[in-house]
Amino acid sequence: MRILFLVALCCCSPTYAQHKNLIQYVNPIVGTHRMGHTYPGATVPFGAVQLSPDTETLPYEVNATYNKDVYKYCAGYQYSDKTIVGFSHTHFSGTGHSDLGDFLVMPTTGKLLLNPGTAANPESGYRSPFNHATEIAQPNYYSVMLDKYNIKAELTTTTRVGMHQYTFPATDSAHIILDMMHGIYNYADKNVWSFLRVENDTLVTGYRQTNGWGRTRTVYFAMAFSKPIASYGYENNSKKQVYRGFWRKFDELHNFPEIAGTLLKAYFNFSTTANEQIKIKFAISPVSTRNALLNMTIEVPHWNFEKIKQQGQEEWEKELAKTEVQGDTETMKNFYTAIYHTLINPTVYMDVNGEYKGLDQNIHTATGFTNYTTFSLWDTYRALHPLYNLLQPRRNADMVSSMLVHYDQSAHKMLPVWSNSANENWCMIGYHSVSVIADAVVKGTYYADAQKALDACIATANHKNYDGIAHYLQLGYVPEDKNRASVSKTLEYAYDDWCIAQLAQKIGRTDIYNEYTKRANNYQNVYDASTGFMRPRMSDGSFKKDFDVLNTDEAGYIEGNAWNYSLYVPHQPAAMIALMGGKKQFAAHLDSLFSMQLPDSYFANTEDISRDGIIGNYVHGNEPAHHVAYLYNYTNEPHKTQERVRMILNKMYHPTPGGLGGNDDCGQMSAWYIFSSLGFYPMAPGSDRYELGSPAIQSAKLHLENGKTLTISTKNQSKKNVYVRSVSLNGTKLNQTYITHNDLMNGGTLVFEMSAKL
Amino acid sequence: MRILFLVALCCCSPTYAQHKNLIQYVNPIVGTHRMGHTYPGATVPFGAVQLSPDTETLPYEVNATYNKDVYKYCAGYQYSDKTIVGFSHTHFSGTGHSDLGDFLVMPTTGKLLLNPGTAANPESGYRSPFNHATEIAQPNYYSVMLDKYNIKAELTTTTRVGMHQYTFPATDSAHIILDMMHGIYNYADKNVWSFLRVENDTLVTGYRQTNGWGRTRTVYFAMAFSKPIASYGYENNSKKQVYRGFWRKFDELHNFPEIAGTLLKAYFNFSTTANEQIKIKFAISPVSTRNALLNMTIEVPHWNFEKIKQQGQEEWEKELAKTEVQGDTETMKNFYTAIYHTLINPTVYMDVNGEYKGLDQNIHTATGFTNYTTFSLWDTYRALHPLYNLLQPRRNADMVSSMLVHYDQSAHKMLPVWSNSANENWCMIGYHSVSVIADAVVKGTYYADAQKALDACIATANHKNYDGIAHYLQLGYVPEDKNRASVSKTLEYAYDDWCIAQLAQKIGRTDIYNEYTKRANNYQNVYDASTGFMRPRMSDGSFKKDFDVLNTDEAGYIEGNAWNYSLYVPHQPAAMIALMGGKKQFAAHLDSLFSMQLPDSYFANTEDISRDGIIGNYVHGNEPAHHVAYLYNYTNEPHKTQERVRMILNKMYHPTPGGLGGNDDCGQMSAWYIFSSLGFYPMAPGSDRYELGSPAIQSAKLHLENGKTLTISTKNQSKKNVYVRSVSLNGTKLNQTYITHNDLMNGGTLVFEMSAKL
Repeated sequence: MRILFLVALCCCSPTYAQHKNLIQYVNPIVGTHRMGHTYPGATVPFGAVQLSPDTETLPYEVNATYNKDVYKYCAGYQYSDKTIVGFSHTHFSGTGHSDLGDFLVMPTTGKLLLNPGTAANPESGYRSPFNHATEIAQPNYYSVMLDKYNIKAELTTTTRVGMHQYTFPATDSAHIILDMMHGIYNYADKNVWSFLRVENDTLVTGYRQTNGWGRTRTVYFAMAFSKPIASYGYENNSKKQVYRGFWRKFDELHNFPEIAGTLLKAYFNFSTTANEQIKIKFAISPVSTRNALLNMTIEVPHWNFEKIKQQGQEEWEKELAKTEVQGDTETMKNFYTAIYHTLINPTVYMDVNGEYKGLDQNIHTATGFTNYTTFSLWDTYRALHPLYNLLQPRRNADMVSSMLVHYDQSAHKMLPVWSNSANENWCMIGYHSVSVIADAVVKGTYYADAQKALDACIATANHKNYDGIAHYLQLGYVPEDKNRASVSKTLEYAYDDWCIAQLAQKIGRTDIYNEYTKRANNYQNVYDASTGFMRPRMSDGSFKKDFDVLNTDEAGYIEGNAWNYSLYVPHQPAAMIALMGGKKQFAAHLDSLFSMQLPDSYFANTEDISRDGIIGNYVHGNEPAHHVAYLYNYTNEPHKTQERVRMILNKMYHPTPGGLGGNDDCGQMSAWYIFSSLGFYPMAPGSDRYELGSPAIQSAKLHLENGKTLTISTKNQSKKNVYVRSVSLNGTKLNQTYITHNDLMNGGTLVFEMSAKL
Repeated sequence: MRILFLVALCCCSPTYAQHKNLIQYVNPIVGTHRMGHTYPGATVPFGAVQLSPDTETLPYEVNATYNKDVYKYCAGYQYSDKTIVGFSHTHFSGTGHSDLGDFLVMPTTGKLLLNPGTAANPESGYRSPFNHATEIAQPNYYSVMLDKYNIKAELTTTTRVGMHQYTFPATDSAHIILDMMHGIYNYADKNVWSFLRVENDTLVTGYRQTNGWGRTRTVYFAMAFSKPIASYGYENNSKKQVYRGFWRKFDELHNFPEIAGTLLKAYFNFSTTANEQIKIKFAISPVSTRNALLNMTIEVPHWNFEKIKQQGQEEWEKELAKTEVQGDTETMKNFYTAIYHTLINPTVYMDVNGEYKGLDQNIHTATGFTNYTTFSLWDTYRALHPLYNLLQPRRNADMVSSMLVHYDQSAHKMLPVWSNSANENWCMIGYHSVSVIADAVVKGTYYADAQKALDACIATANHKNYDGIAHYLQLGYVPEDKNRASVSKTLEYAYDDWCIAQLAQKIGRTDIYNEYTKRANNYQNVYDASTGFMRPRMSDGSFKKDFDVLNTDEAGYIEGNAWNYSLYVPHQPAAMIALMGGKKQFAAHLDSLFSMQLPDSYFANTEDISRDGIIGNYVHGNEPAHHVAYLYNYTNEPHKTQERVRMILNKMYHPTPGGLGGNDDCGQMSAWYIFSSLGFYPMAPGSDRYELGSPAIQSAKLHLENGKTLTISTKNQSKKNVYVRSVSLNGTKLNQTYITHNDLMNGGTLVFEMSAKL
């Protein structure tokens, strides 16, 4: 059997700097309060396992508060909660929709309770109160006291294996519960099937098949105990019960080594002495229990918890050290926590032998690349993948390869929209894989099969069954009467088409370049000069009559209103500004955006915009306007880009539990922070340009994979000195408000001279 | 990729005789009326695909008549029905419990109807009336006119591929429906999940996961059309609906290439000219859609329906020709139909590349053997597997290998009880794998790893969580107050233990031989001398007070009452007869069994014993008494064995739709016919002896796999001449009432001299 030692491969990267204990600046708790939707638990960079405490488990039947809670518990944990229900092995980081939460493990003592109980009455179930005072959250390490049981819980991971270490009191009734009913997004019972085998007195295997955000998703596991199980049993809550003959008189719920059903819980009993540790290795696989066991055997062939913790923390340290920054303590914390959050999703999606389940539900082997999943592309094409092209180009090339095998395996012959674990959930809009691919090809990151990549982009952009494309091809815009959120779709398709043109140009396909350059102008078709906004248009050519420039949903937009979305022409800012009345008028329009006062009613309509994530009417908590602060660069007032960027950095990011102004969205919010605090931002991925802004750090060294180092330094940097008097690259003053990818990749020194005044 | 050309391998067997059109004597319709539970459709010997018409589809919700119907439609087809709902690809042959019925295909024309409608009102759905006059059922060929649509339907198969040929009228609205909701045994919705992809305009793939008799069973498929699909769509009746964002405006039900859910139907539209044929190749796999497609590519790389039909019929002819018999027409029909029914189950359970899904839900590869499933062992250990040891020893050795990998993969570390498709359903009682294995080892059929086989038998026979074994080991019997059907279990365990002893003796393990020879006497522990019957005993040692010697269920027995089951000591008939009062008293007791009159109330209590399957109180429709007619050989009246055997052959087997006196039970009933009509029967598998009876054939030639031929001939044979005056082997008169396996395998001539008188 061919085993790819991925971790070992990664370790071959040059060590850029001595360890500097940069992980001390990372706080995984950041974003766990309210809107951030991050989780505090343990994971390694891009780890397939995210082992983290869940503070609530959703009921299996929908009730009145259900939808709110589904949103609130996207990552399973809310900082304000007082109880922990257990520790599950898979979590999205920062999403605005929920899934996962596979395989909840909870250690308890005393009377066996198999229901989680309620937050109001934790004594009614297995959950335990906890206190943040006992909580330690570090990269790849989480620890907390489970106060009800006096059990210290510690968690750490490798890429595919979670390791639990529970320190018990002396008891003859120690239990470890494996709740296979638990999950995040249990909407109307998402469990499709589950299967569990007790292979021997220290090994359990099984799987869980769910119909959640991912429609057809199965996760296999292997669970090893450091101490033999004394006895064990199950609770089977399945509505579907297996065939039983009357003559069959087995006790299938106690010490019977196999069970299957839709809604299962298992428990394992032990006796413990005071401070005795029971450890668990919990490996997962998208393919089989055999592969899960193989993952365990290869990644954790021992029971040394500290070693696993240390290995993972060294991995983190190595990734963090690729960007050595100096700044004030808050900035250091924000920055490295942001780096941390950008290296969680996408996640590795293959076993140590390279096998993974494809969209076609067959088992495939990744050859020559690491296969990734969890592509939240509507979010991450903007800054996260461009950040990878700068700091993680090899991984980003593998992500492009992962998108191309998705395309190969897709029944639709489309690139991913929002994909996870062999599922396309079609979440959000656009075909932004083409942006990621174009950016990677244009920047030289991906070159393996650029022609095929272009073919995949073209096929995706012309799939007439997809979300209004047939109309878009016919009319040059998506008509609102045929397909909702039509303005957002039209604008994003136009940008995506421009990306395809850039890709085609890069590989010499002039025909395609010309065709898609034309399509890239389609944003003009939804511009309403009478209002000065992009506006929903009907299939008869008229603009939609009812038009509320503040409304988002039901108004022709999604996750952004007319004020924010009308600015979404990142690929042709100058032309857009001309269309909108010229530089002066446009700058004033931007000023209004950042300064207007919104009525309270605005916030009632949307689940994921709060005043936390907003400045005036500029919404930073959602993505469509992430490039907007940089648009001042195309007016005569680029200093306002500098001013706004620093304002956003200050207002939207804090190293506190509630420190994120919106969902982190798989790292997009954090990637915005990293670029902006370094002083530049990729306004239009697919272009080799970065808009210059105003750095927030004192200085930075970027250790690039090509072996070169880019040093960013500032003069006169301070909180107040937000304006950039001049920028020089390797001693030469820049006369434009952008810098190119080559400029950065060639290394050298980029100096920003700061000032408190214009 | 390693491809095993299994069919080709089978073809390497020597051709024993010229083709004699023996398939003309096979009538697959036999047993399709009432109790036989056979199906009339197309299959090849041991084929994984059984492509057959279903005349009813059960509702998804349980109603009053449900349980009766579940039993009635074990094989999907009842001869008295007037409508066909469609053609599905998997069927058990002759079982007394139901499952399968995967992937119902139905061609229709005109208005698209996706529900099956009712038998009373076929116009309300897609089902069609049909007439037996248009029905042709042959080995590997089935044809019928679907009268509602004027479509001629024809079916044929290879091992893993079904081929449909539908001759349409001229219409612009021809449909082929794929109903993935349909199934046999839909108890409370057995569908767990289904998945379907339209790969291109002639290829569909997918799978169906069910929780039926098999608890966790998934069948994958690949479906190819001979003509491009014009358009297609789905009906999604799933209660669980996939996540949908409001902005998603796809039409996922029309021409959208992927769907998944619990309850799906698909349809494919075509235009046809008059008499245009649309053909379908439908391949299945237990592993993946990729393997299903591979099976199709390897087994049917063309569209020649006639060629597939002919190949399969040649396979049948070759198998039938291994036993060349002469007799009257009814006997010829009974005999070859019985041979046919013995070569359907077990079924091949691996793909052309050797892969199959194991009990542990992992994918395994069969190395050096063909893997089989569908082991109805409580039935088939008696005569079916012994028949294989005579006529199909290579296949039987592979079946033993299949049982041993089941043991390896079992969480319980047990041999199969009733297994199908990677599931142990624990149906019925005993651990009769040990009988099959012992018989194969004792007779020299299986020799690959007899020591491991013994270990597996011992582990199975000592699994204390299994069905009363802990009590049996402690008390020497299963106590009725602890475990129902306790007499049946005690008696069968005692026989099975004797089998283990024989196996141990064969391989020189005297310790095991002694231990299990002792256990084999446990039947004595439930003998009640005061009543002369085996009687339920309590854990305190007393016999159960209420004792009804006619009752079956709830009375200490299963599928047999005290009269029948008390005779179940096939391994020690002489000792049993001594226990029961000696030869004379015992013979009289047997006489009573065959002649007593049962009250009508007797038949009300049990679902699968009718007057069809009974002679006096002797129940031939169930298995526990199948050896009983041969017990007269151990009294002073062996002529009554001859008399009773001929009576049973005459009364219980007819070449008509209702011609079987009970469920064929995966070939056990038919195997009884074959042995008994040849003149001998394996009363105690695990022994090398066959009891001599009274042949019903005129003569027979058995072409054995060792190259030898056994000729059986009769003198003075007639319907009335049921008594055997003498038997001689190779000219030497036999002085005993049995013959040994070696005697048969050495070939030569066995002559029965028949007489009308004693």
